[in-house]
Amino acid sequence: MGTERAAGAGSAAGEGERLPQPATADIDLVTVLHALGDPVRLTLLLSYADDAEHSCDPRGLGLEHLHKSTVSHHMRVLREAGITTTRVAGRNRFVRLRRADLDTRFPGLLDALLAAASTPA
Amino acid sequence: MGTERAAGAGSAAGEGERLPQPATADIDLVTVLHALGDPVRLTLLLSYADDAEHSCDPRGLGLEHLHKSTVSHHMRVLREAGITTTRVAGRNRFVRLRRADLDTRFPGLLDALLAAASTPA
Repeated sequence: MGTERAAGAGSAAGEGERLPQPATADIDLVTVLHALGDPVRLTLLLSYADDAEHSCDPRGLGLEHLHKSTVSHHMRVLREAGITTTRVAGRNRFVRLRRADLDTRFPGLLDALLAAASTPA
Repeated sequence: MGTERAAGAGSAAGEGERLPQPATADIDLVTVLHALGDPVRLTLLLSYADDAEHSCDPRGLGLEHLHKSTVSHHMRVLREAGITTTRVAGRNRFVRLRRADLDTRFPGLLDALLAAASTPA
């Protein structure tokens, strides 16, 4: 099980150190599904589906009702599952979906999950 | 949130009372993902992917190492999430995947999950 510590190399999302994350080949389906089997984290996935970098500020994510530490915990679960990547720039952290990596590891899964998550309840 | 108690009506899987299960429209994505975010339950999903009815005997499911009550717990989680349906026939219970219902509720999701679950680790 490898853990990447890429320093933003080759990233389209800009420079900066990255927090630890599983290598693409080590992304585990059970871990991914467990990570997304939570309403807050599924909400975050939908926010990240625009492929943009997002700050960790709960206000920008429709999660104003949650404590910042709670949101940070959920972000960590997503990152450690291989769903997101987190870039550190000074005191700021920016989160982005690992769409290409997920599509490589499990073709079609992310699109199906996003479509399902957008289905009316 | 409705709960079905269909008595096998219109089922291709044979007659018999069914244990309670969510109606198709009430199948919830977070609940489905949480149910499948577990290695035993994901193994069960793969066993059920043949669309046949399966007895609850752990030996027929490659789960000989688990206690029968543990397997029963996992089967209950899958049923209550809307992933499987359980038919009661006398003292026996038979489990089958709700493929059509899942495809109706979340088109493409089950196929993507099964493909991902079949991906080498």
